[in-house]
Amino acid sequence: MTINENETIEDLQLNGLKIIQKKDGFRFGLDAVLLSDFAKDIKSNKTLDLCTGSGIIPILLSAKSKAEKLYGIEIQEQVYDIARRSVILNNLEDRIEIINGDIKNADFPKHSFDLITCNPPYMPMGAAIKNPKDEKTIARHEILCNLEDVISVSEQLLSYHGFLALVHKPTRLSDIIWLMKNHNIEPKKIRFVHKTKNSEPCLVLVCGSYKGGIELRILPPLILTEDDGSDSEEVKRIYGI
Amino acid sequence: MTINENETIEDLQLNGLKIIQKKDGFRFGLDAVLLSDFAKDIKSNKTLDLCTGSGIIPILLSAKSKAEKLYGIEIQEQVYDIARRSVILNNLEDRIEIINGDIKNADFPKHSFDLITCNPPYMPMGAAIKNPKDEKTIARHEILCNLEDVISVSEQLLSYHGFLALVHKPTRLSDIIWLMKNHNIEPKKIRFVHKTKNSEPCLVLVCGSYKGGIELRILPPLILTEDDGSDSEEVKRIYGI
Repeated sequence: MTINENETIEDLQLNGLKIIQKKDGFRFGLDAVLLSDFAKDIKSNKTLDLCTGSGIIPILLSAKSKAEKLYGIEIQEQVYDIARRSVILNNLEDRIEIINGDIKNADFPKHSFDLITCNPPYMPMGAAIKNPKDEKTIARHEILCNLEDVISVSEQLLSYHGFLALVHKPTRLSDIIWLMKNHNIEPKKIRFVHKTKNSEPCLVLVCGSYKGGIELRILPPLILTEDDGSDSEEVKRIYGI
Repeated sequence: MTINENETIEDLQLNGLKIIQKKDGFRFGLDAVLLSDFAKDIKSNKTLDLCTGSGIIPILLSAKSKAEKLYGIEIQEQVYDIARRSVILNNLEDRIEIINGDIKNADFPKHSFDLITCNPPYMPMGAAIKNPKDEKTIARHEILCNLEDVISVSEQLLSYHGFLALVHKPTRLSDIIWLMKNHNIEPKKIRFVHKTKNSEPCLVLVCGSYKGGIELRILPPLILTEDDGSDSEEVKRIYGI
């Protein structure tokens, strides 16, 4: 299995797991780590990660959750190839399968996943995008896949009472809730992520259930840093520091 | 102006304002005070408070905001009469008008209010309600008015880019957002109220704009008590302690 010159191998500090990333490409961030932690206790035999990128979420969930089988789908062929090689690097081929394709045409059996996760592109498709074929631009902007695609595909693929867990920008929360409800996915748990206890949230974690009943919980805020600037206890727990 | 034997006069600790309340009826709470504070800086010449109860919100806003004219509408005749007398007690007849009526048939000119506030009944209408004509039951349960009534009436009465400011239980947030968006009211600001910094929120404040653009802010959490159980600085500011 090849590691290319423009790639690095990161140690995930979790069960010896590693991940391949491009030096100058889109690199996984805090959002993927927080989403994996948020989704880890959702009971699932079959999990699918949409817009999987480097495969970070299925790789983390292979250690953090009990899912028997984890799938990731990625539209960009070069990025898919990195994720596929990361799975081999970790000897996880039996548990994780990475697919190269567009989520909108994915050939999965309907209503077959107990859990779908997604760390989608956050930024709306705007006229100001200069390089719409650039790998990082595609990972950040709704060029090839938007929020409604993610939610409508999840409506097709989730099992009855299966869960969709997303991380996104808080500015998009009303769109997320509105689209989920319009696509039969009832928001169940929301958690805001704040840099400090007095700041506006920088991220939001949302979990909804396909054909679930109306019963929303807003969890306590997830605060990243203490007043003195050090990592909060919860961040230390999530990163296993 | 009469004060009845089963009523008390409360000093609101704000510009000498007072309010009449029944000793054994529904009494205003923290939610009304927080909503008035949340809504006080929204520019408005003409403000309407739906389900006004004792008139606490227009009376507080008469001191906290610059609105020239404030209206309150209350369906229960006895409760309306208390609010009307509180307006007289404060010599606010020129600025505040309380109307006895059902918000669903209110005879206001369409699209004539810059700001609508509402602290509605929180609890869904359920089969378990024993005494649906009781004053406190009506104030707490969606018997005579539900969330969709409040939001659809606001759609009819708000001026272009006018604001609806609500306080409610966080469990109802997805309904609030979904109904607002379906009634052309775009959620603009959301603030959660937490008893302590590590607890789930007990209340949510939501402000939406009629035909407003999509641009949501989640404000920093409003924490009611410090770790040692004392009132937070923000609660002291709001109550003018």
